[in-house]
Amino acid sequence: MAQMVRPSGTTMILPYDQFIEHDNRHIDPNPDAANPDYICNLALEGGYNGVAIHYGLAKRYWTKLAGKVPLLLKINGKTSFPPQKAPLSVYTSYVEDGVRMGAAAIGYTMYYGSPRQDEDLPQLADVRKACDKYGMPLIVWAYPRGEAVEMKGGKDCSYAVESAVRMATEMGATVIKANIPVSAPGDFSTNESVPSYYRKLEDELMGLDAKAQKWERTKRVVQAAQGIPVLFSGGDQVSDEELTENVEACLDAGCFGFIFGRNMWKRKKDDALALGSKFQQMLDNSK
Amino acid sequence: MAQMVRPSGTTMILPYDQFIEHDNRHIDPNPDAANPDYICNLALEGGYNGVAIHYGLAKRYWTKLAGKVPLLLKINGKTSFPPQKAPLSVYTSYVEDGVRMGAAAIGYTMYYGSPRQDEDLPQLADVRKACDKYGMPLIVWAYPRGEAVEMKGGKDCSYAVESAVRMATEMGATVIKANIPVSAPGDFSTNESVPSYYRKLEDELMGLDAKAQKWERTKRVVQAAQGIPVLFSGGDQVSDEELTENVEACLDAGCFGFIFGRNMWKRKKDDALALGSKFQQMLDNSK
Amino acid sequence: MAQMVRPSGTTMILPYDQFIEHDNRHIDPNPDAANPDYICNLALEGGYNGVAIHYGLAKRYWTKLAGKVPLLLKINGKTSFPPQKAPLSVYTSYVEDGVRMGAAAIGYTMYYGSPRQDEDLPQLADVRKACDKYGMPLIVWAYPRGEAVEMKGGKDCSYAVESAVRMATEMGATVIKANIPVSAPGDFSTNESVPSYYRKLEDELMGLDAKAQKWERTKRVVQAAQGIPVLFSGGDQVSDEELTENVEACLDAGCFGFIFGRNMWKRKKDDALALGSKFQQMLDNSK
Amino acid sequence: MAQMVRPSGTTMILPYDQFIEHDNRHIDPNPDAANPDYICNLALEGGYNGVAIHYGLAKRYWTKLAGKVPLLLKINGKTSFPPQKAPLSVYTSYVEDGVRMGAAAIGYTMYYGSPRQDEDLPQLADVRKACDKYGMPLIVWAYPRGEAVEMKGGKDCSYAVESAVRMATEMGATVIKANIPVSAPGDFSTNESVPSYYRKLEDELMGLDAKAQKWERTKRVVQAAQGIPVLFSGGDQVSDEELTENVEACLDAGCFGFIFGRNMWKRKKDDALALGSKFQQMLDNSK
Amino acid sequence: MAQMVRPSGTTMILPYDQFIEHDNRHIDPNPDAANPDYICNLALEGGYNGVAIHYGLAKRYWTKLAGKVPLLLKINGKTSFPPQKAPLSVYTSYVEDGVRMGAAAIGYTMYYGSPRQDEDLPQLADVRKACDKYGMPLIVWAYPRGEAVEMKGGKDCSYAVESAVRMATEMGATVIKANIPVSAPGDFSTNESVPSYYRKLEDELMGLDAKAQKWERTKRVVQAAQGIPVLFSGGDQVSDEELTENVEACLDAGCFGFIFGRNMWKRKKDDALALGSKFQQMLDNSK
Repeated sequence: MAQMVRPSGTTMILPYDQFIEHDNRHIDPNPDAANPDYICNLALEGGYNGVAIHYGLAKRYWTKLAGKVPLLLKINGKTSFPPQKAPLSVYTSYVEDGVRMGAAAIGYTMYYGSPRQDEDLPQLADVRKACDKYGMPLIVWAYPRGEAVEMKGGKDCSYAVESAVRMATEMGATVIKANIPVSAPGDFSTNESVPSYYRKLEDELMGLDAKAQKWERTKRVVQAAQGIPVLFSGGDQVSDEELTENVEACLDAGCFGFIFGRNMWKRKKDDALALGSKFQQMLDNSK
Repeated sequence: MAQMVRPSGTTMILPYDQFIEHDNRHIDPNPDAANPDYICNLALEGGYNGVAIHYGLAKRYWTKLAGKVPLLLKINGKTSFPPQKAPLSVYTSYVEDGVRMGAAAIGYTMYYGSPRQDEDLPQLADVRKACDKYGMPLIVWAYPRGEAVEMKGGKDCSYAVESAVRMATEMGATVIKANIPVSAPGDFSTNESVPSYYRKLEDELMGLDAKAQKWERTKRVVQAAQGIPVLFSGGDQVSDEELTENVEACLDAGCFGFIFGRNMWKRKKDDALALGSKFQQMLDNSK
Repeated sequence: MAQMVRPSGTTMILPYDQFIEHDNRHIDPNPDAANPDYICNLALEGGYNGVAIHYGLAKRYWTKLAGKVPLLLKINGKTSFPPQKAPLSVYTSYVEDGVRMGAAAIGYTMYYGSPRQDEDLPQLADVRKACDKYGMPLIVWAYPRGEAVEMKGGKDCSYAVESAVRMATEMGATVIKANIPVSAPGDFSTNESVPSYYRKLEDELMGLDAKAQKWERTKRVVQAAQGIPVLFSGGDQVSDEELTENVEACLDAGCFGFIFGRNMWKRKKDDALALGSKFQQMLDNSK
Repeated sequence: MAQMVRPSGTTMILPYDQFIEHDNRHIDPNPDAANPDYICNLALEGGYNGVAIHYGLAKRYWTKLAGKVPLLLKINGKTSFPPQKAPLSVYTSYVEDGVRMGAAAIGYTMYYGSPRQDEDLPQLADVRKACDKYGMPLIVWAYPRGEAVEMKGGKDCSYAVESAVRMATEMGATVIKANIPVSAPGDFSTNESVPSYYRKLEDELMGLDAKAQKWERTKRVVQAAQGIPVLFSGGDQVSDEELTENVEACLDAGCFGFIFGRNMWKRKKDDALALGSKFQQMLDNSK
Repeated sequence: MAQMVRPSGTTMILPYDQFIEHDNRHIDPNPDAANPDYICNLALEGGYNGVAIHYGLAKRYWTKLAGKVPLLLKINGKTSFPPQKAPLSVYTSYVEDGVRMGAAAIGYTMYYGSPRQDEDLPQLADVRKACDKYGMPLIVWAYPRGEAVEMKGGKDCSYAVESAVRMATEMGATVIKANIPVSAPGDFSTNESVPSYYRKLEDELMGLDAKAQKWERTKRVVQAAQGIPVLFSGGDQVSDEELTENVEACLDAGCFGFIFGRNMWKRKKDDALALGSKFQQMLDNSK
């Protein structure tokens, strides 16, 4: 893990697993972004502390960067095609592949709350056990997902995100990757399947202005992790202003760093480098 | 197991697996309780004979207490999100993890009567076999659950709890964790899917006053275990008076000890310490 | 196996797996029968040639009897709670546990005709293979069960029982445990899903008086086993007269012995000892 | 395999797995046929080149014949009770059992076209791999089965049988066991789910007289195997005349031999011996 | 892999797995094509750089060609009979079989987008890991399939094919086999479940004339593979002119080679040899 940490004790990682998760659509709007070599060079030039990719790309493209940009081998995935009511992210490679290639860490997506969590949790436990065996850090994508989550406020509400992040702590994650939560749907406070604590909390949060709400929701995510370092995702591409505000919220919350993909490689290269450099400075200054 | 037993031959354990079972809602009403360090210190200060937690917390927080508070590693779990008609509690870690960490015992949740018991029983048999191999005590959460149980009086009636406890004895539990049963629903005595013995018993128990009924139901649980020591859970937070009455009923029934979580860490720390101390004295005096 | 055989070449075994199969209801009418120590002593005093129990009871109670009453370790089970349309009896322990404990034989329940027989048969083949490896006798409970069986005459008709017994022979059982068949439902002879041979047979058997019919059905079960020794179960508790008649029918049919549980431990101890002694003499005299 | 081949390069095998496949009904009309010893003696006296049985019978009965009649150990099976829409024939024993017992070959039933072929094919691949490892011949029962087959002409039409036989060749069978096809249902030629080639073929075959059709269908089965030797089954019991005609058709088609069970052991012993002897002479004369 | 590459750095492979995938129908119109020896000789005479077959054919027929035509062992398959809504191509043999036989490469079919991709991806990851272990090249048939794909433009549209090809790159394919895409159905541009990028792209492609569209779609497939060599399939038999045009499009797109089966072995042998020779020259001249 040490090789993925900046002198300031923070990190900034470039994720590039979206061509599995979202199919080939992401060649728009920056067609260069479909080229793994372009991504690897962006990670190198941009001074990223790691690139998160699947095995095929690691083997063919990242090996050219070995020793220059740490590898975060993402070992499970799921495509956008089949129904998503009971998602399970399955092996695309294994911890042992990462060990053999010299990866700095393993990435695993946990779909918290999915009807198939009975398969997910033991799979994650197996991955964690293998990581323990090899002294390999484990970064858990803590993602609420599936029809049961959708019936209780959705994958992006504070209730779901905080619970998923806590679960990653319970399962033994070294680092947790999370999204910034947003407000729950209008019927949340009368949804009897949601705990009263979170219904009341949501009402309180909704009383805040948009920025204060974002700050509070983000801070609560870091607290839910109970000391396990949290990386925030960037999600869909947003404006420079919004992304910068998100960074500020996350830094104030005490995050460990960022893992921004589409918000980087969907921008023009110069813009991506400039923004990335700015966020790295903000990270360094935050400590 | 010896390290988890008080000189009086009893035990009092602090369970803290609820942030998996019930999601992150339990930060209310005592937000400190969301902090595993707080819990570990509560266990230490409170003189608990063990803390029951999952692997992630054991690895990051309990290790600071190693040698001071015995670890009961809970190795399976389930979240509150997906449907609960056919529950199965799956691995979050393994017996071997407990052995490696120096755990004093392994905790396992068996969902007696669940439509997925065909997966649960062999899983428990595997855990028991591994515990036998390593000389590791196995504490079984004997919990009736699932739609079939709900159709026959529910998870908390004497019929279900006694049967679950007996099953844990049959499966080879070292210690059994159970809840104090309550009365069955009104239609129980005419429910043809329930054995006549238990329908008749329920009618008799319903003829007793509330306290006598509690005493009798609790005593029967200990009898159902046929000599295997029984720990009683506290369940949802109740008043000091009710909790103390429950303790008296369990002691009269001849229980081995208590495993009270929410009733401790949801209280203010001083209150929790005072109550815990009181119950430990009662335990010691009962022998 | 030799240790489970009487000098007359017969055997009488006390089964006590009913607290798994039928839940805790069997504490009525003889509450002592819920106590495994009581059962073990009954087996010892009664001169039984084996006691059939699950691992938990074997480990905690039978060990006191080791060397005095042979252990028949029952290694699979199923509870009474979930739906029974497609039953599968799953591992509660393993052949290796029996080897380690010094069991004289392994007991396995095969649910012949169940929609889940695709899981049952390979599981039984695995058990048989392990028994072969260790030179361990395998006693197969040959039980027709499940919705497909119910549609073709039910679990207790001669067609189902004979077919199940034959299957146990084909699978490599050392000894087969079966029930005495009874007559099929009224619509059996017009049930097109039943082979014509058995429809005709049933018509013929129904032409006999009750006793002759029992004798013939029982004899056919032993014939269906084709030389593999057959143990007959007692099933639900019946009167002394009926049980004695059943014993006579089974002895005339050439059975290997009896495995009577509820008909023993549900009786008063003295009655059970007297009846058991009588049946052992009948067994010895039959050879 | 050599021990199962007649000097003329042909073979005649006695199969006796029907008491699993069809339950105990086959004790009619020749009750002796239910006796595995009777079958073993029939195989010995009749000069059969092998007897195809499951493990239980092999262990208890065939061992008396070891060195006299080669053993074809049938290692998978299925009963007649559960629904047959998506059949899968599962392990009743293993290749290693056959190796240990000195079997001359392994028998495996492949249900071509079954909705569960996703389990069947890897299971067959595993068996084939184990057979390769031990140098053990593998005889594949190439049987079209299941609801998808029924929708495309049924399990006995040329389209299904030829495709199944070809599949067995593709999977690596040493020898293939098949049935003589019969004509497809009336709506076959307008069934859009059937390939046009086979619809046209069926129309052509239907234009032939009954005998020519049988000759052509049988010849095509041998051709579909592409050089892998084919054994023809006898199926249900038929008259001496029909069975003899079938034998002639198969011999003209260039089959490797026969595997006739019910058509032998359902006949009176003398008749079976006489017919068997006649067919063996026809086999020897055919080369 | 080197043994499968022409001096010009290209390849031309003869696939013959269609008698599994499409049943025995392919004996029409060239019955010789049903004969694996005919195919092997066609591969040898035609100067093919490999023949792609399943284990049974490899073991019985290809071994005669060993050292003359490289073997591409296809290790998974699926028949045409069961429903195809959630296809999974399962093992018919294993990587280790290929290693033992001296195969030059392993072939694996990935059904991108199938509801059973949760089983497919780990299976492919296992195959890839075994190939890595043995230094064995892995050729992935990148095939979109299943009901979810059909709802989003179908298995042959550019969106599906490009996404599947990219997935094969992500999974670590050595070489990717793909089909030339065709236009999506009419409702594609208003299908909300399709990403806007591909809806817009399809509109643009539909504005081109037929040939330009084929050129562009083919070129995009090679680009989607991001440098991993692409082999194009021939699919159903088409005219000499159409096949030649397809070859030109693929060569202009920068493909690695061709894997033409039905378009070769369904033609008369001389025609197949002439066409194959022509395409090999075109391949050699393209570099």
